[in-house]
Amino acid sequence: MGIVVQKYGGSSVADAAGVKRVAQRIVNTKKAGHQVVVVVSAMGDTTDELIDLANEVSPLPPARELDMLLTAGERISMAVLAMAIQNLGHEARSFTGSQAGVITDAAHGKAKIIDVTPGRIEAAIGEGAIAIVAGFQGVSQTTKDITTLGRGGSDTTAVALAVALKADVCEIYSDVDGIFTADPRIEPRARKVPRISYEETLEMAAQGAKILHLRCVEYARRYDMPIHVRSSFSEKEGTWVVKAEDVAQENSMEAAIITGVAHDRSQAKITIVGVPDKPGEAASIFRAVADAQINLDMIVQNVSAAATSLTDISFTLPRGEGQTAMTALSRLQESVGFDSLQYDDSVGKVSIVGAGMSSSPGISARFFEALSEAGVNIEMISTSEIRVSVVVAETQVEAAVNAAHAAFDLGSDEIEAVVYGGTGR
Amino acid sequence: MGIVVQKYGGSSVADAAGVKRVAQRIVNTKKAGHQVVVVVSAMGDTTDELIDLANEVSPLPPARELDMLLTAGERISMAVLAMAIQNLGHEARSFTGSQAGVITDAAHGKAKIIDVTPGRIEAAIGEGAIAIVAGFQGVSQTTKDITTLGRGGSDTTAVALAVALKADVCEIYSDVDGIFTADPRIEPRARKVPRISYEETLEMAAQGAKILHLRCVEYARRYDMPIHVRSSFSEKEGTWVVKAEDVAQENSMEAAIITGVAHDRSQAKITIVGVPDKPGEAASIFRAVADAQINLDMIVQNVSAAATSLTDISFTLPRGEGQTAMTALSRLQESVGFDSLQYDDSVGKVSIVGAGMSSSPGISARFFEALSEAGVNIEMISTSEIRVSVVVAETQVEAAVNAAHAAFDLGSDEIEAVVYGGTGR
Repeated sequence: MGIVVQKYGGSSVADAAGVKRVAQRIVNTKKAGHQVVVVVSAMGDTTDELIDLANEVSPLPPARELDMLLTAGERISMAVLAMAIQNLGHEARSFTGSQAGVITDAAHGKAKIIDVTPGRIEAAIGEGAIAIVAGFQGVSQTTKDITTLGRGGSDTTAVALAVALKADVCEIYSDVDGIFTADPRIEPRARKVPRISYEETLEMAAQGAKILHLRCVEYARRYDMPIHVRSSFSEKEGTWVVKAEDVAQENSMEAAIITGVAHDRSQAKITIVGVPDKPGEAASIFRAVADAQINLDMIVQNVSAAATSLTDISFTLPRGEGQTAMTALSRLQESVGFDSLQYDDSVGKVSIVGAGMSSSPGISARFFEALSEAGVNIEMISTSEIRVSVVVAETQVEAAVNAAHAAFDLGSDEIEAVVYGGTGR
Repeated sequence: MGIVVQKYGGSSVADAAGVKRVAQRIVNTKKAGHQVVVVVSAMGDTTDELIDLANEVSPLPPARELDMLLTAGERISMAVLAMAIQNLGHEARSFTGSQAGVITDAAHGKAKIIDVTPGRIEAAIGEGAIAIVAGFQGVSQTTKDITTLGRGGSDTTAVALAVALKADVCEIYSDVDGIFTADPRIEPRARKVPRISYEETLEMAAQGAKILHLRCVEYARRYDMPIHVRSSFSEKEGTWVVKAEDVAQENSMEAAIITGVAHDRSQAKITIVGVPDKPGEAASIFRAVADAQINLDMIVQNVSAAATSLTDISFTLPRGEGQTAMTALSRLQESVGFDSLQYDDSVGKVSIVGAGMSSSPGISARFFEALSEAGVNIEMISTSEIRVSVVVAETQVEAAVNAAHAAFDLGSDEIEAVVYGGTGR
C-alpha cells in the first residue's frame, strides 16, 4: 500500500462546495488502497484578504507577524477539509506545518525548508487516518517562530513531504488539466503534454508558464520524486513530471524537439544608455541592482561604438521591482557617468523549451524565422541548453506564441476544451 | 516596573480602526512604564463566520478540527495587532496559545488549563517587547493537539497568564465601562460599581450578567489576581474585582447590602407533571438529564398531593439545551411513569446579589414585596448565601429588575451614558 501525497490549491477549495468535492476525491484515493497525505493552500482569496487587512493597519507589516497572519489561511482550509472528509465517514486529522515537522530557516516570508520530520503524519496514516497538512508554512529551527515559504510554498511543502514520506507520487491539483504546449488562452491548439522532464518544467516555469513553481520542481528533481500535475475538476490523467530518461524512454518513437512555448507578460526592461566601456562599470551597476534585491533575468550589452567608447546595457526584471531598480540605478549616474535610463514595461518574453534542442541544430534559426514571418520584432535574445527566449513588444506576445507553436508542430488537430488558471500558492 | 496583562475582546478589535485604537492604548500603557502582555480575542464576528463555514461542510464538525479552525481567528487578530503596534514604533511579538505555554487537557472545545509556562512571553517582555497572546486557545499536554477553552476562554487566558507572570493586574477590556448595578439597557439608573468581590462577581455572572465569565473569575479568586474591568473606548476607571476584604475596607462607610441586580433571558423551564413520589424517581430523571450533558440551574419539587402521591418537578436550563433534555426525558416516561412534560421558553430569571446579604435579615422579603408591588408573579425561587433568584415570565423581567433596583436604592441620581454589550469570548 503506497503513500500518495496530494496538493490542492486555493482555487480547488475556494468555497464549501469545492472543499466537499476535494474531500470526495481524497476519499476515493483512500478507498483505492492508498495511504493519503493532503497538502492544502488557503481557500480562494483568503491570502489576499489577509494581506489587505495587514495593509490596513501597517504600510509595511513586519515579516514575522505577516507570516503569523497568513498561516491562518491554511489553518482554516485544512480544518474545514478534515471536517468534510470526516463527514464522509473517514478519519482525517489536520496538522500545521510545525506539527507536520516542516522545519525551516528563519527567513520570514521566504523560508527555506531545512528538514522534514513527519513523525505525526506517519503515525496518523499508520493508524488509517488521512493526514491534512497546511501548505506554505513551517517553523523556524532557531527561533521556533512560524514561517512561510513564499510563493509556490504549498507545492514545495507537498513535494518535501512526499520525499520525506517516501511517497509513490506527489499529485499537484489545480484547475488546469496539466502542463500544455502553450497557454491555451492564447494558443487554441495547445496540447496537454503527457510527460515532461524536471529540467524542461523548470525552464517553462522560469519563463512564465504558470504551472509549477520552480522551487517545488527543483526539490522533486533533487530527490527524483515524480509529480503528477492534474485538475481537481476532472478525472483525466494530467502531466507527469519525471526525470529526463523516463521521458525519453516513453517518447522514443516520436522524440519531440520542442516541448512547449512559454510566455511571460510580467517583465519590464531597463536600458542604461551611454555607459563608459571600462572594466568594472558593469560590475558596479549590477552590484547596485543586486543590493536592491532585484531579480534580473536577461542581460544584453551592446557592442560599444568605437568612436565614443560608450555602450548600452539592457536587462529585464519583474515589473514590480522596476521602481526600486530605477531608484538604485539613478543614484549611480554620477559615479558611473552614464547618459540616461530608459524604462519600458510594455515588453513580454516568449520562450521555446525542449530537451531535444541541444542535439538538434537550427532550432533558434527556425524560431527567429517564424517570428519574422509573423512580423514580430525581437528586442533581446537569451538562450540556455534547452531554451531560447526572446523579448518582444507586449502587443506581439500572442502572435509570437502562435508562430512558435505552429513552427514546431506542437498543436493538436482538435482544439481541447480546457480550463486554465493560476496554481495558487 | 510591573507587568500588566490586558485582554481585549472581539468588539474592541472588530476592524482595522479598532485594532489601531487598541494598539495606541497598549503603547500608552507601555510608555507609562509597564511591561505589557496583551491577550486578544478574534476580530468581531470572525468566530461565528468560521463556525458557519464549518457547518457548511459538516453538520457535526469533529471537535479537534473545530478547535483547529477557530484558533485561526485569534491568530489573525494577534498578528494584525502586533503589526499595528510596530507601526507605532514599538516592538511587538505575537504568540499562539501553544507558544505562550498555555497547556491544557485534551477536551476539545472546553479544555481546562493545566499549566502555564510562559517562558517565551517572559523573554519577549524582558527584551522590552510587547507580547501579544492569542486568547481562548492552548495545546493539549498529552496529544499536542490545539485546543480551545470554550466560552470566556480569552478572559481565562488573560487571568491565567497574569497569575503565571505575577502581574500587578489583569485588565479586561470590552465595550462596557465596567460592572453595573444592573444592565443599563433596561435599568437607566444603573450605576457603575467601583469595587466588587470575586464572589459577588461570580454570582452576577452565573445569574446572567454579561460581564466576566465564571471561569476567569474563579481563576482570579483562587490566585487572588485583581481584575480591572473597563472599556477600551474610554479612559475612565472601570470596576475592580478583588477579594471581599478589600471591598469591605473600601466600602466601610456605606456598606452596600446588595451590589447589583442580574437578569437572564436565556433560560427555559421544564416541568415534569405527575411524577410518582417514590425514592429514586427524581434520581433517575436527573441522571437522564445529566447523561444528556444538560446544565440544570434551578430545581423545584412541589410537595406531593397526598391523595395521589404524585408530585411535579420543575427545573430551568439553557434554552439551547431544551430540545435535547425533552428528548432524553420523554424516553423515561414509561419507566418512571410520569404524566406529561411541559416546556416553557418564555421565562426569565432575575437575581439580587450582595455580600452584605448574609448579615442582613429580611432581604428576600423586601425583594419579593417589591416584585409583588410591581405586579410581577414569581414562578420559582432559589437562593445562595449572597444571592436570591426568581424565575418570572420573560415579559416581566424588565419590571422585576427595575423594582429590585429601586427597592435596594442601587440607582444613581443621574443617568450615566453608557455603552453596553457582550464581552465576546
